[in-house]
Amino acid sequence: MDRDRILLTPGPLTTTLRTKLAMLKDWGSWDADFNAVTAQVRERLLDIVNGRDTHVVVPLQGSGTFSVEAAVATLVPRDGHVLVLDNGAYCKRAAKLTQMMGRKATVMAFPEDAPVSPEALEDRLKADASITHVVLIHCETGTGVENPLAAVAALCDRHGKGLIVDAMSSFAALPIDAAKLKFDALIAASGKCLEGVPGMGFVFIRKAVLDRCAGNSQSLAMDLHDQHVYMGKTGQWRFTPPTHVVVALAEAMQQFVEEGGQPARLARYTQNYRTLVDGMAALGFKPFLRPEIQAPIIVTFHAPAHPAYDFKRFYDSAKAKGFMLYPGKLTQVETFRVGCIGAIGPLEMQQAVNAVAATLREMGIPNGNPAH
Amino acid sequence: MDRDRILLTPGPLTTTLRTKLAMLKDWGSWDADFNAVTAQVRERLLDIVNGRDTHVVVPLQGSGTFSVEAAVATLVPRDGHVLVLDNGAYCKRAAKLTQMMGRKATVMAFPEDAPVSPEALEDRLKADASITHVVLIHCETGTGVENPLAAVAALCDRHGKGLIVDAMSSFAALPIDAAKLKFDALIAASGKCLEGVPGMGFVFIRKAVLDRCAGNSQSLAMDLHDQHVYMGKTGQWRFTPPTHVVVALAEAMQQFVEEGGQPARLARYTQNYRTLVDGMAALGFKPFLRPEIQAPIIVTFHAPAHPAYDFKRFYDSAKAKGFMLYPGKLTQVETFRVGCIGAIGPLEMQQAVNAVAATLREMGIPNGNPAH
Repeated sequence: MDRDRILLTPGPLTTTLRTKLAMLKDWGSWDADFNAVTAQVRERLLDIVNGRDTHVVVPLQGSGTFSVEAAVATLVPRDGHVLVLDNGAYCKRAAKLTQMMGRKATVMAFPEDAPVSPEALEDRLKADASITHVVLIHCETGTGVENPLAAVAALCDRHGKGLIVDAMSSFAALPIDAAKLKFDALIAASGKCLEGVPGMGFVFIRKAVLDRCAGNSQSLAMDLHDQHVYMGKTGQWRFTPPTHVVVALAEAMQQFVEEGGQPARLARYTQNYRTLVDGMAALGFKPFLRPEIQAPIIVTFHAPAHPAYDFKRFYDSAKAKGFMLYPGKLTQVETFRVGCIGAIGPLEMQQAVNAVAATLREMGIPNGNPAH
Repeated sequence: MDRDRILLTPGPLTTTLRTKLAMLKDWGSWDADFNAVTAQVRERLLDIVNGRDTHVVVPLQGSGTFSVEAAVATLVPRDGHVLVLDNGAYCKRAAKLTQMMGRKATVMAFPEDAPVSPEALEDRLKADASITHVVLIHCETGTGVENPLAAVAALCDRHGKGLIVDAMSSFAALPIDAAKLKFDALIAASGKCLEGVPGMGFVFIRKAVLDRCAGNSQSLAMDLHDQHVYMGKTGQWRFTPPTHVVVALAEAMQQFVEEGGQPARLARYTQNYRTLVDGMAALGFKPFLRPEIQAPIIVTFHAPAHPAYDFKRFYDSAKAKGFMLYPGKLTQVETFRVGCIGAIGPLEMQQAVNAVAATLREMGIPNGNPAH
């Protein structure tokens, strides 16, 4: 009847009712009670990356992209030179926003169906001493590929380059340890693997570079250094925070802790992923990526080759059965994506596979075999 | 017991339970159902300013300040020159963000306890032909003063200057008719007089200047032209929208329509305002502004002169009685503020006055008389 559909997307995700219920209260954004919520969220975020000694975390209003733009604006000086490791749509977006704000950005292109190459990065860093910062997308949501964060971080450290990591889709699911990995900034958002609702992002900034960030940003709203200093002084956000989104995130993080933190979340998502790829394989579908480079976050599947296939019909039919799939983001190959994240388990994922099977039958498509 | 306190602030506000209940559902940001919500919100926003013929409206993630910054970035060309009419804290913020993004900004200072002067503006426009845009805050939330929007708009029109109006605190309460007033941009947000929850803003842009806005913004996230073009093509937001905030706004706007729209909202807020100022006057409190320039949105009161007065104790005591007041934002005079807006009526406002009376008694302060 009016049961909610399950979102098999890279975000917004399906959240628990308990998380949503936290939004049934209005909070004064100036008030000590709300400041305590903000402070708790910040401390728990630092715990997730084991970063209390090395990093601060600065929340920011808006979508995750706002936080990526803010991280670049705050971390990279006006005369900096950013090398963007590009193997997908979100890498291209990071390069675009860097160039638009007037920072020099060089794009280093890699194939979309493979991780970026640390060896190639090292060659580039050796060849161009003007590079000051490297931008890496940890899990490219465009395809779902996991990039080699540890190797890239080690290289940037060795060559004295600042590393900015977009961990939007991986944070809280894949392990990230600030005591073992050196990064100047790492970005994620409320509506991803923490299973909060969308509306805010946050950026971890290495304490050692924080002071040097003052005055870098050409945007008032996106100046994370200013936001950090103001929060330190007052406990408050500089500009009106999305109060309901913040309290929902606090509630979602309480459940994250209760579940067992990042290892437990990764285990659940991995189960979801297995259920999905095994079930889809049995229907003839083929993932776009080789399994060894695939994060258990979002899976890109080749579209079926059968002439009756049409994404819109496929999507609408699966939606009518209770599951919202996601379109592909590749330009060369026809694909669609299925998220493994959100407040769902293998049970829901099996139901999703069953719904896809029924959808194929409805569309008169014998199997999901792709063209190649 | 656990009854919610009432927020007498300029936002976030007290919202209805019906508005908050709309957030108990997760929406796919790519899905047609959510696109329909966005489209309905945009149409209804245009109706509020009678702007379907003349303007488009572009929603943006983040707080209201993000939308102000986006409006300036999108509307003002790189070599533009912005004149900011300054009679308060939010005017100064608009000037700061304009300068930070690299646009030339001139601040024209007026006293905080009076509206800006159209005559003085006209003299300045005559004296400096390089000015391309004027920024006006309709209702300065720092004090609560209502600025002469119609007169300023007529002047800007006569002199061929683009007018950017920050109507954050006034929109949906004070009348604004796009068919009678010419403005290039007008900005407001979800968590103000529409009584939604905070997390998104929106900017009305005059259709006649829209095409010229392409390429102005140096920020990807804040490029309202790009956001508008993308929404036109796809019905979707460019980057993840705060889905729960958007559906709460849609629900709040449905109640706005049911209540009778802007005239009904103004009537209720005016009743709240009357109840507040009459009740506070009986306790000896004195408003900072003369009544004829005071909008019925937020009222700044002088702090009591009595030596036992201390804002923090005053605030905490009123909070314990169920009402959250707001600190002053003036540097020269000690004040506090009380909002008249949100999902409350004169009944709640009378209770608030009663709570202030009890607070004074508790603090041993005979009356609210200020020093002068």
